Amino acid sequence: MLKLRPPSKSASSAETSASTPTSTTKPKSQDKVITPRSQDFNAWYLDIIYHAELSDYGPVRGTMVIRPYGYAIWESIQDYLNVKFKETGHSNMYFPQFIPYSFIEKEASHVEGFSPELAVVTIGGGKELEEKLVVRPTSETIVNHMFTQWIQSHRDLPLMINQWANVTRWEMRTKPFVRTLEFLWQEGHTAHSTPEEAEKEALQMIDVYTKFAYEHAAIPVIAGRKSKVETFAGADRTYTIEAMMGDRKALQAGTSHNLGQNFSRAFGTQFTYENGQRQHVWQTSWAISTRFVGGIIMTHGDDAGLMLPPRVAPIQVVIVPIWKKEEEKLGVLDAGISTYEALKSAGIKVKFDDSEQQTPGWKFNFWEMKGVPVRIEIGPRDVLNKSVVISRRDIPGKQGKVFGVSMEPDVLVSYVKDKLDEVQASLLSMATSFRDSYALCHYASVTINLTSHSMFIVSNIVDVTSYEELKAAISDGKWARGPWSGSDEDELKVKEETGATIRCFPFEQPQGTKTCLMTGGPAEEVAIFAKSY
Amino acid sequence: MLKLRPPSKSASSAETSASTPTSTTKPKSQDKVITPRSQDFNAWYLDIIYHAELSDYGPVRGTMVIRPYGYAIWESIQDYLNVKFKETGHSNMYFPQFIPYSFIEKEASHVEGFSPELAVVTIGGGKELEEKLVVRPTSETIVNHMFTQWIQSHRDLPLMINQWANVTRWEMRTKPFVRTLEFLWQEGHTAHSTPEEAEKEALQMIDVYTKFAYEHAAIPVIAGRKSKVETFAGADRTYTIEAMMGDRKALQAGTSHNLGQNFSRAFGTQFTYENGQRQHVWQTSWAISTRFVGGIIMTHGDDAGLMLPPRVAPIQVVIVPIWKKEEEKLGVLDAGISTYEALKSAGIKVKFDDSEQQTPGWKFNFWEMKGVPVRIEIGPRDVLNKSVVISRRDIPGKQGKVFGVSMEPDVLVSYVKDKLDEVQASLLSMATSFRDSYALCHYASVTINLTSHSMFIVSNIVDVTSYEELKAAISDGKWARGPWSGSDEDELKVKEETGATIRCFPFEQPQGTKTCLMTGGPAEEVAIFAKSY
Repeated sequence: MLKLRPPSKSASSAETSASTPTSTTKPKSQDKVITPRSQDFNAWYLDIIYHAELSDYGPVRGTMVIRPYGYAIWESIQDYLNVKFKETGHSNMYFPQFIPYSFIEKEASHVEGFSPELAVVTIGGGKELEEKLVVRPTSETIVNHMFTQWIQSHRDLPLMINQWANVTRWEMRTKPFVRTLEFLWQEGHTAHSTPEEAEKEALQMIDVYTKFAYEHAAIPVIAGRKSKVETFAGADRTYTIEAMMGDRKALQAGTSHNLGQNFSRAFGTQFTYENGQRQHVWQTSWAISTRFVGGIIMTHGDDAGLMLPPRVAPIQVVIVPIWKKEEEKLGVLDAGISTYEALKSAGIKVKFDDSEQQTPGWKFNFWEMKGVPVRIEIGPRDVLNKSVVISRRDIPGKQGKVFGVSMEPDVLVSYVKDKLDEVQASLLSMATSFRDSYALCHYASVTINLTSHSMFIVSNIVDVTSYEELKAAISDGKWARGPWSGSDEDELKVKEETGATIRCFPFEQPQGTKTCLMTGGPAEEVAIFAKSY
Repeated sequence: MLKLRPPSKSASSAETSASTPTSTTKPKSQDKVITPRSQDFNAWYLDIIYHAELSDYGPVRGTMVIRPYGYAIWESIQDYLNVKFKETGHSNMYFPQFIPYSFIEKEASHVEGFSPELAVVTIGGGKELEEKLVVRPTSETIVNHMFTQWIQSHRDLPLMINQWANVTRWEMRTKPFVRTLEFLWQEGHTAHSTPEEAEKEALQMIDVYTKFAYEHAAIPVIAGRKSKVETFAGADRTYTIEAMMGDRKALQAGTSHNLGQNFSRAFGTQFTYENGQRQHVWQTSWAISTRFVGGIIMTHGDDAGLMLPPRVAPIQVVIVPIWKKEEEKLGVLDAGISTYEALKSAGIKVKFDDSEQQTPGWKFNFWEMKGVPVRIEIGPRDVLNKSVVISRRDIPGKQGKVFGVSMEPDVLVSYVKDKLDEVQASLLSMATSFRDSYALCHYASVTINLTSHSMFIVSNIVDVTSYEELKAAISDGKWARGPWSGSDEDELKVKEETGATIRCFPFEQPQGTKTCLMTGGPAEEVAIFAKSY
């Protein structure tokens, strides 16, 4: 157990109530403790959020302050996606956050989906407003109001935009990053002249998200289509990426909606064909939010703390200088600074922790807890040998430690870059292994050696053929995958009886004829069921 | 007069009322007209905003949709400032936008300044809230609430952060970019252990803004200190950069506040010295908003439209292919594509306008109106000569046109980069000349040759020594600069009688003893008076 601060009091109650910000004002000088991940996943998550300074509770129940270390992860997500959005032809812009209440009511299923969780402005400039204003929970309505003015002819299509913005949903059960009253996201909105083009766009964007999750966040998401019950309020079809967290709950990490003509009909968003005929546009919308930061935290990590994929890590390498005698200090610090400069000028995000208030051992624990992928130690002997010691965060203890890596800048930079690539690949591989092959003897620890054949390996995704098997898998805390052609009522029954929902009909489907696990009738697809955040 | 669309109806009424979004839905195919800048500056501004697609009116009065071309200018501002903020030791983060009403009331002058323009959420999740929530007009109060929890010891200081966010102020008179109900900005917030350090920080940040305005936006702002009357609600001192728009009104383009201990006392934000003594922190805050985009538009430009400094221009170079005979087309388009690729791979923001629906002449006018700094024409003769024709936006007509520039990629790229640098420098120089030396015969046109000695040149900033001279200068539409040691009441009298306010006491002060223009008593500083946005 890593000692850092007093254990979080009533961690699980903090999940549902963010109204006690004063509970986070613990003195910094005391010993600190991170609840082991293997012991209480939720307490570990909240301890990590607090001690790694990722976020804090805002003064209003359910709101969150995103602190610099957490925000830097969000910025790396923004940087990656902004490039991809522009490559795929989208422009950034910004819509107002206040939406006339009447807009929300125009699309029937949209109002049904969102009206229970709206924040409403009723007073402006000291006066009661004539029409109440909704603080945007999402922007389809105001986007369509504007699109209607910008789109006249088929030549104005496709119209493909994105905005980075805050949104508000009055959630009752909140949890930092995962579900907060206000959160940050990007929302893409597009309008097309054919339904095929809209479908292609919705699929393209879920594909961008899937690649992002794998390549950047090292999260092996499963992409697929939502069931009718779980489809976005106002969409014809919703595509999703679903991620398995360290406690084996599912996290919906990004969605892309084919909106069909639902909003264009409600708002009269029409274009004219070359022959003069008028038609409603076909639309999509798609979003990823700060919830994804929660997904990164809960996918990677171990009892010692966070484990950040190098591509999202605000600090990729930390340098810890070590000396005992005063006459060793100068040489060690000099070597530390040179190493820092070499890595920094190579574009590596590096931190030189030369503070004298803490011991090297304390620093090792601290930066491990913060999830820094690579650590460099430099002591007096290293200075003599012109070398450094390098440790990987993903391989704990001596196994991950390499002595005698040359200090020569070119050699070192190249070595560190290789290590960062290895950690990136290793985190994806460990998360994939955890999802697909799971050793019973090491519950909730992903640091096991999965090539060891002496262990009893089962998958955390269980293929099921009957409702009984589904119930057993869910009650074991796993995901269940099985053929499904049940009704909406069947789906709701599963939810009521097991707490699991259809996460998606995955794009990757097994071959062959299938029999619905619930009805016994023929099924075209398998669905994945799981409990979720 | 550039024909583009029907002239804007009731342009000046649109300044004060943004409640008629449907008036902007004019058919695209008709002829369009931009009101000449020299004829009606405000109508020109609104025409440009509309036709260059910089922004549009949101459905709620006073709100604005920032369209891709306008948003890209904002992104270039963000890119520049983000680098500078990080270089000066600040980290980005994010605070919730909902602030308990009671917070706003804690700092006396703050509540007085902001309470008339608050938007208030009274309903959340379908229920009346126990405590009303303010949608942030600025974040000092919630920042201090959090700082109080994060700051314990002198070792936690300085704490230096920034956030990019939307803010809401219930303004009555609105105008796109310049003053809107909701706008985007960055707000920096810092806490320090000494008053000197806070003052140094406040000055450092106004210096960052000043350099930004000159280097990036080509706006020759005047930096200085606000008068007590004009100081931010809750600050000890406010520093400002003031810009002269094309109609000679002043625009407050960025501010930096030394907050002293006003907020730390109101919120109990304290730290402990090494000797155990407790002390309130000293603080600063500083902001630049989307209003700056309005400043760029209103500083540069002429009767033909926008004129964007290359460093903020979403499109720096437009390529227009020209052919008459079908057999010329392929060669011209090929040359256009090669030119496009050469510039693009050199990192230049380039657009190849190969659409066949418009004539080259129409395109010239259109891209001129959009303010693109450099235009490249390629016709059949250019293809034969392996050369292109290059025009600068800032030098209209044939004077700005250079024939026979080699198409050879290295030569062309280097030539274009030089031209972009020249336009950048020229826009700053023209704006500075307009402010400091002004030819009566060319009202509101900045394209004149200011080296011509035959013109009658006077400055748009007039040095005044008496209130009579001040009134004359202001009624001429100019800025007045004169010694000032008047009282708050004297200052308000000037405002009432002339409409002008003290924009700042500029950092650059003339030498020698001074006599207050109002009281006749001794004055330590000159102040600048002007009508402002």
